[in-house]
Amino acid sequence: MGAKGNLIIGQSGGPTQVINQSLVGAVLEALKHDNIDGIYGMVNGVQGLLDEKIIDLRKEKKEDLEKVAMSPGAALGSCRYKPTQEDCEKIFNICKKKNIRYFFYIGGNDTAETANIIHDIASEEGYDLGIFHVPKTIDNDLRETDHCPGYGSASRYVSLLFKGDNLDNLSLKGIKLNIVMGRNAGWLTAAAALARENEGDGPHLVYVPERPVTMETMAKDIEKVYQKHGRALVAVSEGLRNTDGELMIKSKLKEQDSHGNVQLSGSGTLGDFLSAEIKAMLGGKLRVRADTLGYAQRAFMGVYSEVDAREARQVGEAAVRFAAGGETSGSVIIKRLGNGPDYAVEMGFTDLEKVARVTKDMPNKFVTGDNDVSNAFIEYLKPLVGDLPPAGRLNFHSIK
Amino acid sequence: MGAKGNLIIGQSGGPTQVINQSLVGAVLEALKHDNIDGIYGMVNGVQGLLDEKIIDLRKEKKEDLEKVAMSPGAALGSCRYKPTQEDCEKIFNICKKKNIRYFFYIGGNDTAETANIIHDIASEEGYDLGIFHVPKTIDNDLRETDHCPGYGSASRYVSLLFKGDNLDNLSLKGIKLNIVMGRNAGWLTAAAALARENEGDGPHLVYVPERPVTMETMAKDIEKVYQKHGRALVAVSEGLRNTDGELMIKSKLKEQDSHGNVQLSGSGTLGDFLSAEIKAMLGGKLRVRADTLGYAQRAFMGVYSEVDAREARQVGEAAVRFAAGGETSGSVIIKRLGNGPDYAVEMGFTDLEKVARVTKDMPNKFVTGDNDVSNAFIEYLKPLVGDLPPAGRLNFHSIK
Repeated sequence: MGAKGNLIIGQSGGPTQVINQSLVGAVLEALKHDNIDGIYGMVNGVQGLLDEKIIDLRKEKKEDLEKVAMSPGAALGSCRYKPTQEDCEKIFNICKKKNIRYFFYIGGNDTAETANIIHDIASEEGYDLGIFHVPKTIDNDLRETDHCPGYGSASRYVSLLFKGDNLDNLSLKGIKLNIVMGRNAGWLTAAAALARENEGDGPHLVYVPERPVTMETMAKDIEKVYQKHGRALVAVSEGLRNTDGELMIKSKLKEQDSHGNVQLSGSGTLGDFLSAEIKAMLGGKLRVRADTLGYAQRAFMGVYSEVDAREARQVGEAAVRFAAGGETSGSVIIKRLGNGPDYAVEMGFTDLEKVARVTKDMPNKFVTGDNDVSNAFIEYLKPLVGDLPPAGRLNFHSIK
Repeated sequence: MGAKGNLIIGQSGGPTQVINQSLVGAVLEALKHDNIDGIYGMVNGVQGLLDEKIIDLRKEKKEDLEKVAMSPGAALGSCRYKPTQEDCEKIFNICKKKNIRYFFYIGGNDTAETANIIHDIASEEGYDLGIFHVPKTIDNDLRETDHCPGYGSASRYVSLLFKGDNLDNLSLKGIKLNIVMGRNAGWLTAAAALARENEGDGPHLVYVPERPVTMETMAKDIEKVYQKHGRALVAVSEGLRNTDGELMIKSKLKEQDSHGNVQLSGSGTLGDFLSAEIKAMLGGKLRVRADTLGYAQRAFMGVYSEVDAREARQVGEAAVRFAAGGETSGSVIIKRLGNGPDYAVEMGFTDLEKVARVTKDMPNKFVTGDNDVSNAFIEYLKPLVGDLPPAGRLNFHSIK
């Protein structure tokens, strides 16, 4: 049984479609536990907490919380701030002053790292503070967990976009590149493959950071597809790397965020660069277009995966249940118990440090050598995304 | 009563979410009329017709057609080819040879123009050929009709995207520009305004081609919004013009399509240009991001407006009904009979030449001086898009 005191929860990093499900799951679960008094929310994550921007979540009505759960964006406000050691000490002191005994931070691997630092300080000081990382990321790149809440919904958006764009590209043929989010790993880009339903459907090529390429081989790959199908629909990860291991458009990029990461999203740079290069390499005459899928991947209103929404709720609930039951720290993980029609999961948890810092690439069994994904990957992803609507096609009957 | 003979139908220009509803509506209506024999489809519009690429639509099963109706993309294949006078004569001769008496072309104003030329040739030759333009365009820029099939669904996509992006932007504050399709008119960009639900919601500024601006005033507008809200969500039409009446990024663009139009879509150029300019003008320190909404605006699988789908079906049906009833040419138009809860329409038709060539800008009553749209526009648009899911927000109760 955990200590008696207050709970605080915050959200960090890029929001997802279902990050509020985790928040609401945690809040509603917390209401059931007598050892939890105040249920507080950090406004804008640890950045707001440093300024003691804290709100009372017990006062929210259940129906409002349920509407929040269904909405994208981080309802508490998020931050991209990575606290220093000094900041973490300050945060610890705020927790102590406010008798906070349960600390939940919803986010990616940077968030797990922050949680781990605060946990270490609390342990050294001998203060009873349960610290839990609640996973979320559309990038699906956290270790230990089978998959990350937020990934299924973002994958659904990407699959539906490619499914429609495949039909669009069929009707007005040409070379179409779609740049998908994923700085280090190709998980979300690979979701484009779920759009295929009929023979010849795109994406015809899937480029992920795990498989570096040269512009020359890329242009040749695309030309081959174009010769076969009279068109080419191509999925490209924003984090695509060249064979020197550098980002494909390193030289074109300037901005860096506070974690030292290069800005890839919110800009059409890579798509425009690739389409110009490919167009030039293929002789300049083909119609080449590039769309850079934007924040809609993580925030499009109303498009989400039901499985993902349910699981995001469950990780929030599980974190509070573990904490209230006396666990002192950890990151919630999803364990897959069955697949296909027997798809089922259970919540577990693991050490914070096992999730912090290092991210998880797509394993070799999921990526094939010819710029595609394996059937094993499709089987892995399908239950996370749910059924997609069928693509209607005419049969092109010839006239007698 | 129209002549007895065969019918042909084709699709042209950029597809929409519901362009196949019009196709299927026309085919299913044609099955009811005894004076219509063969029901043919042009493969890739008049470009395919010139090569006599024609398929038999009578052989399609009804359930397949219904799946096609629900799918984006032009199921027959589309084209961006504008036939010459000579081509039009060739098309006329193919029609004559194949005893085609009903000619339907689904498309925008260029399509109406093609139909009108073929109509003139048939009239001169004294050949009984009913020619009908079936309107479709996400741009909503056709004259005579109250609105265009395809616009409501594209608007729904744009509204949902802005609604989610507003929540995303609330949680990680910054300046966010979204570039929306619309070469000459701001109709689709203006649909972003439907995303607003609560006080302070974005889009905070809406830039349409009908209201030219300078970079300086734009940067100042955005700065003002940023000072008020600590963030700015901005809708910008791809066809935004400067006060000289030129495209904002004229110098940056090279490609032209065969209608002499500059390529605006399938590239992030305008968004990247604007975000760099605005960032520089505002001192270089603010977080500025731009997403360029891509082909998903017209082709995202599963996101469509039910009203739009129904009306697109109806314009297809109406075209065939008019033709089979003995009308010889025209463009189908939608007349609005009531608005708000009394929203209702009826199908009518008008002369081809009234729809050809010239497009329709947003009228002054729909655009306000301060880079926004009027309530009259919101009332105009709402029934075309349908209800949107509510945006859940926390109430930010302070702690005792």
